[in-house]
Amino acid sequence: MRMYDIIEKKKRNIELSKEEIDFFVNGYTNGSIPDYQISALLMAIYFNGMSDNELSFLTLSMANSGDTIDLSNVNGITVDKHSTGGVGDKTTLIVAPIVAALGCKVAKMSGRGLGFTGGTIDKLESIPGYNVNISANDFFKQVNEIGLSIVAQSGNLTPADKKLYTLRDVTATIDSIPLIASSVMSKKLAAGASCIVLDVKVGSGAFMKDIESAKLLAQKMVNIGYSANRKVLAVISNMNIPLGNAIGNSLEIKEAIDVLKGNGPKDLVDICVCLSSYMLMLSTNKDIEECKTLVNEVIKNGKAFDKFKQLIKYQNGNIDYINNPELFKTAIYQVPFYAEKSGYISNMNTELIGNCSSILGAGRAFKEDTIDFSAGIILKHKTGDYVKKGEVIAILHSSDEAKIQNGMKIFNQAVTFSEKEIEKQPIIFDVIQK
Amino acid sequence: MRMYDIIEKKKRNIELSKEEIDFFVNGYTNGSIPDYQISALLMAIYFNGMSDNELSFLTLSMANSGDTIDLSNVNGITVDKHSTGGVGDKTTLIVAPIVAALGCKVAKMSGRGLGFTGGTIDKLESIPGYNVNISANDFFKQVNEIGLSIVAQSGNLTPADKKLYTLRDVTATIDSIPLIASSVMSKKLAAGASCIVLDVKVGSGAFMKDIESAKLLAQKMVNIGYSANRKVLAVISNMNIPLGNAIGNSLEIKEAIDVLKGNGPKDLVDICVCLSSYMLMLSTNKDIEECKTLVNEVIKNGKAFDKFKQLIKYQNGNIDYINNPELFKTAIYQVPFYAEKSGYISNMNTELIGNCSSILGAGRAFKEDTIDFSAGIILKHKTGDYVKKGEVIAILHSSDEAKIQNGMKIFNQAVTFSEKEIEKQPIIFDVIQK
Repeated sequence: MRMYDIIEKKKRNIELSKEEIDFFVNGYTNGSIPDYQISALLMAIYFNGMSDNELSFLTLSMANSGDTIDLSNVNGITVDKHSTGGVGDKTTLIVAPIVAALGCKVAKMSGRGLGFTGGTIDKLESIPGYNVNISANDFFKQVNEIGLSIVAQSGNLTPADKKLYTLRDVTATIDSIPLIASSVMSKKLAAGASCIVLDVKVGSGAFMKDIESAKLLAQKMVNIGYSANRKVLAVISNMNIPLGNAIGNSLEIKEAIDVLKGNGPKDLVDICVCLSSYMLMLSTNKDIEECKTLVNEVIKNGKAFDKFKQLIKYQNGNIDYINNPELFKTAIYQVPFYAEKSGYISNMNTELIGNCSSILGAGRAFKEDTIDFSAGIILKHKTGDYVKKGEVIAILHSSDEAKIQNGMKIFNQAVTFSEKEIEKQPIIFDVIQK
Repeated sequence: MRMYDIIEKKKRNIELSKEEIDFFVNGYTNGSIPDYQISALLMAIYFNGMSDNELSFLTLSMANSGDTIDLSNVNGITVDKHSTGGVGDKTTLIVAPIVAALGCKVAKMSGRGLGFTGGTIDKLESIPGYNVNISANDFFKQVNEIGLSIVAQSGNLTPADKKLYTLRDVTATIDSIPLIASSVMSKKLAAGASCIVLDVKVGSGAFMKDIESAKLLAQKMVNIGYSANRKVLAVISNMNIPLGNAIGNSLEIKEAIDVLKGNGPKDLVDICVCLSSYMLMLSTNKDIEECKTLVNEVIKNGKAFDKFKQLIKYQNGNIDYINNPELFKTAIYQVPFYAEKSGYISNMNTELIGNCSSILGAGRAFKEDTIDFSAGIILKHKTGDYVKKGEVIAILHSSDEAKIQNGMKIFNQAVTFSEKEIEKQPIIFDVIQK
C-alpha cells in the first residue's frame, strides 16, 4: 500500500477502505508517513468530504491509535458529555453532579486546553485542594462509590488526533466537518462512556457559525457514535451570546454553585436541564419529559448540589469554599463597563468577549501560560436588554490594571446598540438524534 | 504575511496577489516554508485552479527563482521549442536545424530526463565525440556563427520548479493544469528565447489523455507566454501512437537524419514541418503557408541537413556517423515481434511501448542509470495497418537477451487487433494561438 495512491484516490473522490484509512492513521502516528503527504490528503478531504463509512473507520482508527479507557470496571451505565466549546460554558460542572445524583455514572477525564478561559480542570483547580491527578484505581473506585469523578486526562489518548490536529492547525484544514467530527468522536470513543451527549455550539463565539453546518456536524458525530455501538445525541445550542453571566474560572465555579442551588441565570439553567435530561434519557431509556421532571427535582431538593459537594470533598477540595463562595479570592481590579448610550444591546460579539476574558488573565494563549483564577467578566446585561446611558453592562475582573485597559477596549468593540427592540434568540436551536 | 493565510485564501478560492505568490515561491525555495504547508496549497490549487493573473505571477516567480539565461548577446530572433513528452519524439533534432537554416537563432539547453528513452542530450551523445558541455561564451559564439547550438542544461535554473515538482510527485498533485503550465513555462521563460512553439502531446503515451484538457493546458501556456512578452504558439499533437518508427537513442538519430534528407515516416515529417513552420512564422511574422513552403524547400535542397552536420561538427561530433549512419553501433539482439493473427492493428498502447523501450535499455528509471544507446524499437507497422499472421510488426533491439524477453511481454500487451478497418487518426489535432 502506498500513501501516494491513498491521496490520489481521495483526490478523485473514490471511497477509501478501512485498510487504507488504518494505513495512513497508523503510518502518521508512528512517523513513517511524512507531514507533507498527510497535509495533501487533509486538503483533499476538505474538498471531497468523507462518506459515513470512511468517517467511521477514521474515527475508530484514531480512537485506537493510543491508550483507551476501559470503563468495564464501573458498575452501571456510564455517560459523558462534550461541548464543542464556547464562552462562559461551565455546564460540565453542573450536569455531571445532576445526572450522578440520578444514578448515572460519570467517569470524566477533562482537558485544560487553550482558549477564552481554562478548561473544566482549571476551573476545578480554582477550588483550593481539589486534586485532579488520581490513580486509575482510585478513579474507578470513586465512580463506583459516589457515581462521579472529574480528573485531568492522563495517558496517551488519541495520539493520531493530536498529531493531525497540530498539522491541520498550520495547513488551514481545521474547518472540515468530517475532520472535526472524527477528532471529537475519536476522543469520546477512547474515553469509554457508553452514552454521550454532545453540545454543539453555533454562533459568533463558536467554531460553527451557522445552524445548518452545526446540524450537519452533529448528525455526523451521532452516526459515528452509533457505528461504534455508543448511544449519542447532540444538542445544537446558541453561542451568539456568552452562556450565563460569569466568564472566568472561579467566577464560573460560583455561578455553577448558584445553578446547583436552584438559582442562576435562565439560559444556563435551561441548557443544563436540557443536557442533563438527555444524558439521563440515553442511559435509562426513560421518556424525555420524565427525565426533565427528575432533573428539576434533584436541583430543587438539593441532591444535585450535595453530589457536587461530595465530588469536591472526595477529591480533597476545600468544601468551605463551596458552602461559602465568598471565600474565593477575588480580583484586585473590578472595573465596570458603562453603556455609552441608551438603547437595546443589539449584539455581543461572543468571540471578542472571550478574547477579552483571556486578556484579563482567565485563559491561556500558550500551554505554558499560568491562569489567573479570579480574572474574568461578570455580565450585568446581555443581548436584547434595554440599558440606559451610564448603566453598568459588565464588570471586568483582573489582577493587572493594564490588562483591564486592554480588556475594556476589546469589550467596547464587542458590544453594539440599537434603538429598536431586539428579538431574543432561544438557547437551544435543535436536538439531533439517530 | 503568513503562509497559513495564503493556503486559507486559495482554499476559499480567493485570488492570490503577486506578493503572496512571490512569498510562497521564495519561501519554499529558500526553505523557510515547510513542505507540509506547500503540499496543502498545491492540493487547494488542484481543486480551485488559478486565474490567469495568478498563473502569470506564479510562472514568473518560478522563472526568476534561480539563474536565467540572457540571450541578448545573440544577434537575431531566438526561437525555442518544447514538447510535453512522448514516445519516439525526436523532433528537436530535426526542427532546430531546419529553422536555423532559415535564419532563426536556436540557443537550446536540453535536459537528460527520465523516461521512455533518454532526452535530446542523450540522443546527441550517441554520436561519438559530441560535446554537450560548452561554456556560455562558446555557446553564444556558436549560435551567432551558425545559428544553432544544443547543449546540456547547466546552472541553477528554476530551483522553485524543481522543488515543487518533486513535492507534487509524492503528493498526487502532478495532474493540475495550472501547475503543469507554470512548470513548463517557468523553464521556457528562464531559458530566454523570445519565440516559443509548444508541442502538447495528447493520447495514451502522453500525460494529457484527452484533447480538451490538452487544449486548455496549451491555451494557459500561450497566455502565460504573452503576459511575459514572449510570442508563444502551441500545437496539439497525437500521442496515441508512437511518433515515427524509431524509439531509442541512436535509432532516433538515424531516423532524424532520414527526415532531414527528405525521407522518413510521414507522421514524423508532417509534425516536423508543422512545428518548424510555426517557429518560423512566430519569429518572422511571415504567412504560415509561406513558412511551410520555405521549410519544405530547406529539406529538399539539403540546407537543413547541412545545418545539422554543421551543428554536429561544431560541437566535435564525429561527422562520419552522420554521413554513414550504418557506422552507429547496433544492438547485439534484434528480435522481431510477429503478428499473432491477421487483422488490423486497432491500438498500440503508447505508454506500454515506451515502457518496453525503457526496459530494453533505451531509457532511465533512475538518474544514475546508464543508457544503452543502441537499444530500442523499430516499428514496421502502426495502428490502422493491416497485417498478416506471422508478419513482423516491430523489431526489438537490446544488448541483453533477458531484456528482450521482458520487452516482448510488454510489447505483446501493448498491441491489439481488430477484424474491422480502423480509421487513422491525424497527427496534428489543433493549433492554439493567442
